[in-house]
Amino acid sequence: MNVLTDPAAVLLTEAAHAARSAAAVLAQAPRAQKDAALIAAAAALRAAAPDILAANAADVAAAPDLSAAFKDRLTLTPPRIEAMAVGLEEVAALPDPVGRVLAEWTRPNGLTIRRVAQPLGVIGMIFESRPNVTADAAALCLKSGNAVILRGGRESLRSAGAIHACLGAGLRAARLPAGAVQVAATADRAFVGAMLRAAGLIDLIVPRGGKGLVTRVQEESRVPVLAHAEGLCHTYIHAAADPAMARAILANAKMRRTGVCGATETLLIDAAIAPGLLPLLVDDLAALGCRFRADARARAIRPDLPAANDADFSTEWLDAVLSIAVVDGMAQALDHIRRHGSEHTEAIVTEDAEAAMTFLNGIAAAVGMWNASTQFCDGGEFGFGAEIGIATGRLHARGPVGLEQLCTYRYHLLGTGQVRP
Amino acid sequence: MNVLTDPAAVLLTEAAHAARSAAAVLAQAPRAQKDAALIAAAAALRAAAPDILAANAADVAAAPDLSAAFKDRLTLTPPRIEAMAVGLEEVAALPDPVGRVLAEWTRPNGLTIRRVAQPLGVIGMIFESRPNVTADAAALCLKSGNAVILRGGRESLRSAGAIHACLGAGLRAARLPAGAVQVAATADRAFVGAMLRAAGLIDLIVPRGGKGLVTRVQEESRVPVLAHAEGLCHTYIHAAADPAMARAILANAKMRRTGVCGATETLLIDAAIAPGLLPLLVDDLAALGCRFRADARARAIRPDLPAANDADFSTEWLDAVLSIAVVDGMAQALDHIRRHGSEHTEAIVTEDAEAAMTFLNGIAAAVGMWNASTQFCDGGEFGFGAEIGIATGRLHARGPVGLEQLCTYRYHLLGTGQVRP
Repeated sequence: MNVLTDPAAVLLTEAAHAARSAAAVLAQAPRAQKDAALIAAAAALRAAAPDILAANAADVAAAPDLSAAFKDRLTLTPPRIEAMAVGLEEVAALPDPVGRVLAEWTRPNGLTIRRVAQPLGVIGMIFESRPNVTADAAALCLKSGNAVILRGGRESLRSAGAIHACLGAGLRAARLPAGAVQVAATADRAFVGAMLRAAGLIDLIVPRGGKGLVTRVQEESRVPVLAHAEGLCHTYIHAAADPAMARAILANAKMRRTGVCGATETLLIDAAIAPGLLPLLVDDLAALGCRFRADARARAIRPDLPAANDADFSTEWLDAVLSIAVVDGMAQALDHIRRHGSEHTEAIVTEDAEAAMTFLNGIAAAVGMWNASTQFCDGGEFGFGAEIGIATGRLHARGPVGLEQLCTYRYHLLGTGQVRP
Repeated sequence: MNVLTDPAAVLLTEAAHAARSAAAVLAQAPRAQKDAALIAAAAALRAAAPDILAANAADVAAAPDLSAAFKDRLTLTPPRIEAMAVGLEEVAALPDPVGRVLAEWTRPNGLTIRRVAQPLGVIGMIFESRPNVTADAAALCLKSGNAVILRGGRESLRSAGAIHACLGAGLRAARLPAGAVQVAATADRAFVGAMLRAAGLIDLIVPRGGKGLVTRVQEESRVPVLAHAEGLCHTYIHAAADPAMARAILANAKMRRTGVCGATETLLIDAAIAPGLLPLLVDDLAALGCRFRADARARAIRPDLPAANDADFSTEWLDAVLSIAVVDGMAQALDHIRRHGSEHTEAIVTEDAEAAMTFLNGIAAAVGMWNASTQFCDGGEFGFGAEIGIATGRLHARGPVGLEQLCTYRYHLLGTGQVRP
């Protein structure tokens, strides 16, 4: 569609220009000013809680035929609004990632070369109908000196608008430009398409949501994307595993929360220890409500397990379901992960340090765990304070994306009149 | 075109699969093995010099109506072959970028988190008819543990093939897979298109060549691209500049080599010092053979200068031509650069440290210079040993792209049985 006549493209272009101007201000804003905006926004959220709840109630009422899970994600409550406000204050308390000197060296000719962290510029955030993402993502972008254009689910427009009003109040209180945090106020789906075509106007797209949304964004975007489409994580229980540790880790990795991307979806277990250990693992998980899809070798040990087909091993269950395969050691385990994994997070349980290193170096995933639960793949657990998402691509950032990963760098070369021979 | 029937796509897919397998080997290859391949390839290049020269002579003879510059880039000579061999040996001598621990910290729960450098995977290199790029780029990719698919200009196919044979001999000598370094053996232009569509098969595209090539790649590629389309670099001579330093830096920045991307294309000079200094700068450069395009304020000082139009300030001359504008201080200089720059390299000459920092933080370029020539924007000058190109995008790497920038990272989490609460 013609850029000049497509209303969504016109809207996006206007927003992007305002964001670019704001980004130039934000990039040089001192920490205190950014923090003041976040703290004022938190206060505004608390003060506006009744308005936000009313807007949210209207969103929920207007959305037809919601599934229970969808309605739960869409619905705001007083504790959820308080959690958003606390989230803003927590981001304010984090160190400023901008201006950090990442490396510095001096050349034989006396030139000092400094690699300095700076904001990426303008970020486009595309997410489904969880209105609290509006505040969380805006806080991370603001603190990292980036302007952001937020496009939430169409069902949450009123809620996002009410939250955005509080973020705007925070920006005004800190004398930062309104273009720093913008929320798409249109239900027009073409706006997402316009964002994805906005190379040069938007520097980075961060999609958050189901596999369908993320895959569409990755396939269509002309703008670089940081994301993960899937978290098909494996826990490999190696022959030299400590059995008690293996039981504790697997139960946590599968069942702590089943709907998160770092949850284990497949158990790989070495044939040498499977006869003794697999029944214990299965009983542990069954007691927690887990169901199973097992390969023939696992069913030879526990014939009561339902049979898995090959598609099951490529399925991210996001539910209390575990795929199980028995393997003949490291090479088979790595091969299984190569064929079925999503390069998100894989874990090995073993007391054998050499085997652990072979595994950690042999997988392609962004994150590898040795003797720990795959559910540790999380920005908070990494010590990042917060995250805007998890990335499984090869470029820029991998694993949890926090404030540091929302920055790029540039070089400052400090001379005393050097010329090149 | 259908992937299954497009011969170029079939060829590329085969090459990419071989590259992916080779990349898995390369990623874990010890330094000594990679260095052995490079050193053996250097020996093979020297031994095969007559064959390479014969292939090159056939390329030159077959290409009709070459411009002198094109012919110079295409032509190999014994010293150029020796330079390629030395280049391979120099890359062998550089430290291995793979496996470096980029950061490591331990969480309160005892989990140790390690960020470890690893290869990107499969790199696609697209370049014009400079056959020596075949060896240079292959060396950097191999040393950084990446497999590479090289697609040079159609006019250099025979030369690239002869050089590739030597690289293959190096791989064989070190028992590394042939898929690690592949050269497209087809003149079919569709092969480039297939490379650009190969998201998932190729992890990174590096184009090297003129603005037309790079812009096409950036616009069409579904694979992430590291590149610069243009180096429209400015040197800003600030009111507080040391006049002698300004003269030396500008002469070098403009005239050391005029065809490189880090060459200065535009002089910005503060009105306060222009009446005294501009005539000296112009005379210096004129004596070196430089021509000029000057704005009205510069012509008021030196009426003999040809008048610039606005398009001149957006032109990367790559020649002995300098655009000149007189500005009223920092804000005007930054504004000029924002409107006309290519975010490559900008320099300020000043004795005022505060002004220098305002400039370095105010420009959007990947590289900012204080009191140094813009021609220092080069991987060798940064101490990287070699570079595969210069990047001006916002994601992953900016400035010179050397071995470290050809790596990504992953996380290793080392636990003792931690589960997430």
